[in-house]
Amino acid sequence: MDHASTTPLRPEVLAAMLPFLGEEFGNPSSLHYFGRRPHEALEQARASVASLINAKAEEVFFTSGATEANNWAIKGVAAAARHRPAHVITSAIEHYSVLHAVKTLQRQGARVTFLPVDRYGLVSPRSVAEAIDDDTALITLTHASNEIGTIEPVAEVAEIARAHKVPLHIDATQTIGNVPTDVAALGVDLATLAGHQFYGPKGTGALFVRKGTRLLPLLEGGLQESGRRAGTENVAGIVGLGRAAELAAAEVQQRAERLSVLRDRLREGLEARIPDLAFTGHPTQRLPGHVSLCIHYVEGESVLLMLDAKGIAAASGSSCTSRALKSSHVLEALGLEPGLANGSAMFSLGDGNTAEDVDYLLEVMPPIVERLRAMSPLRPGGN
Amino acid sequence: MDHASTTPLRPEVLAAMLPFLGEEFGNPSSLHYFGRRPHEALEQARASVASLINAKAEEVFFTSGATEANNWAIKGVAAAARHRPAHVITSAIEHYSVLHAVKTLQRQGARVTFLPVDRYGLVSPRSVAEAIDDDTALITLTHASNEIGTIEPVAEVAEIARAHKVPLHIDATQTIGNVPTDVAALGVDLATLAGHQFYGPKGTGALFVRKGTRLLPLLEGGLQESGRRAGTENVAGIVGLGRAAELAAAEVQQRAERLSVLRDRLREGLEARIPDLAFTGHPTQRLPGHVSLCIHYVEGESVLLMLDAKGIAAASGSSCTSRALKSSHVLEALGLEPGLANGSAMFSLGDGNTAEDVDYLLEVMPPIVERLRAMSPLRPGGN
Repeated sequence: MDHASTTPLRPEVLAAMLPFLGEEFGNPSSLHYFGRRPHEALEQARASVASLINAKAEEVFFTSGATEANNWAIKGVAAAARHRPAHVITSAIEHYSVLHAVKTLQRQGARVTFLPVDRYGLVSPRSVAEAIDDDTALITLTHASNEIGTIEPVAEVAEIARAHKVPLHIDATQTIGNVPTDVAALGVDLATLAGHQFYGPKGTGALFVRKGTRLLPLLEGGLQESGRRAGTENVAGIVGLGRAAELAAAEVQQRAERLSVLRDRLREGLEARIPDLAFTGHPTQRLPGHVSLCIHYVEGESVLLMLDAKGIAAASGSSCTSRALKSSHVLEALGLEPGLANGSAMFSLGDGNTAEDVDYLLEVMPPIVERLRAMSPLRPGGN
Repeated sequence: MDHASTTPLRPEVLAAMLPFLGEEFGNPSSLHYFGRRPHEALEQARASVASLINAKAEEVFFTSGATEANNWAIKGVAAAARHRPAHVITSAIEHYSVLHAVKTLQRQGARVTFLPVDRYGLVSPRSVAEAIDDDTALITLTHASNEIGTIEPVAEVAEIARAHKVPLHIDATQTIGNVPTDVAALGVDLATLAGHQFYGPKGTGALFVRKGTRLLPLLEGGLQESGRRAGTENVAGIVGLGRAAELAAAEVQQRAERLSVLRDRLREGLEARIPDLAFTGHPTQRLPGHVSLCIHYVEGESVLLMLDAKGIAAASGSSCTSRALKSSHVLEALGLEPGLANGSAMFSLGDGNTAEDVDYLLEVMPPIVERLRAMSPLRPGGN
């Protein structure tokens, strides 16, 4: 129940990759025999990814994952901006790969506006409009937070961005492949996706760059990816990403519907069985399969360790920083009462989860929370 | 015979990767059950790569390949430098991923010295010493050029760099795994390697960073790779890289010796059978298995197409730019007579090649060159 962290590789995806981990090992840039099939396979994968998000193939650039795509989009647009130092607009609940890239621009002299969010984690499109000025070079916004699941009003923000001719990048790592995501309908200029978030391989991702968007490269060198992202391509990985995109295109609607039902079953079940829970993020405008909450009077980590012992994998925050055990800027941005964020827990359901899994969690979790609360000095009247 | 472009994946490497493309799909950063084995496997791979190059495990940082590692080393050291704008020393025969990264620093205000090479492609250590000044923040030098095969006098350059307290980065993409390479003995501070150059997976690489070397991250975000290179790890790829490193550690000495013999057989055979060849790079101080030459009065591309039709894969330049068909800055730096670089051809032998392969090339190549020369308006007395 930690699919926001990563998803298993689909057997169909592995099957598509295997030839390129064997006989078809050639370098797609080679003009001889060995380069031909890998080159064709890359372009087929590009078409598949483009089709999943309703982009043109030539607007899809492969990367080593979402972190690279986010860093590239932010640093690349800023580097290409006519205004130096530029102004960048983002939100207070971005993933670390956006937050830290933006902070680096800030150290280099850019002005950055960190838009606040409401108690559900929603950015207000009006606040975007108010933040834009003549120097604004980029708006970068999460499509949906991996920590609180809220899906942001990207289409409304895009309309404002377009009216002001400011490029809009979305970090769609959690949404693409899991929620029907149409970059044309949304009207965004750049979008980040990650293969391992929708049953594709780790180490793969892509940046959608709308034709005409000014963007300098981050990884420079050879002429791969139309000269915009250098480096010998991870052919097997990209082929896997393409296959995962094909599967997602066929299944995403159904996937989202099924997981939304499981999500609501989980949330309602927890609410009914455990007192003093504070669910985070938006109640309905949220990722399918995603339940996030803060549990009063306990440490989220302790709950997770006890769930792990029962065979349930869940998370307490972004897995990217789990080993640091520091408090989350995302939960802080929601304005929770002090200490509550320590009790953070996230369940993110995926294709492998069933109603039985949800019911098992609903069975084992209440006694765990009860036991931890009984031991907690934080509980009302506790020692 | 184009192993400088890429190498096939060893079956042992694929076997090591497969569990991580299946059951062990977890995110190494996850604290629950699914994260444990991937996390351990990453650290084992790190130890294997470190062992191959005689580094400490904590000095090895995984990347998506050599291009990322080169960009990171160059931009990361420059960004951390106390002197702004900094001075960077490099050579005239670097790979595009070094050349373009350095040129970006130059556009941003850095001073760059491009050291010339002699007719064999060798950088003079004395020229490095002469180029160093108080602002020098980095020396970045190829260990061996993929185009001309010359192995540079890195240890001598490192001694100079150390005496001046300037960090030295080497692009060891062609050497590590193919030539015994000991970063401690060489005395370098940073070194780039690529998995797919020694029978490991594409999309994997590493940057060796000696402890104490000041370097800012290029890909920012989560706390992976000790907080120095963010992004969910390409676990299967890294495990494959580690396995390839183990195999290379055991085999590299023998590999280099065997390929040197084949290389000399190929070079001597060509020399004996085809008049008017100009071999490029150093005659002996060069990559095992690597023969590079310019063929008077013909286009290298034409030779390659005809060899391809005979089932022989070779290259005319760096595969990273092969689709652009532009002339090579590396060959230009050697001071070849005008037009000769057009006849460039590279053969890079690898584990799969035998003496029979070499003899087959020696059989088919002379009539190809003869035929092309007969048609060429460039030949002496040609029309």
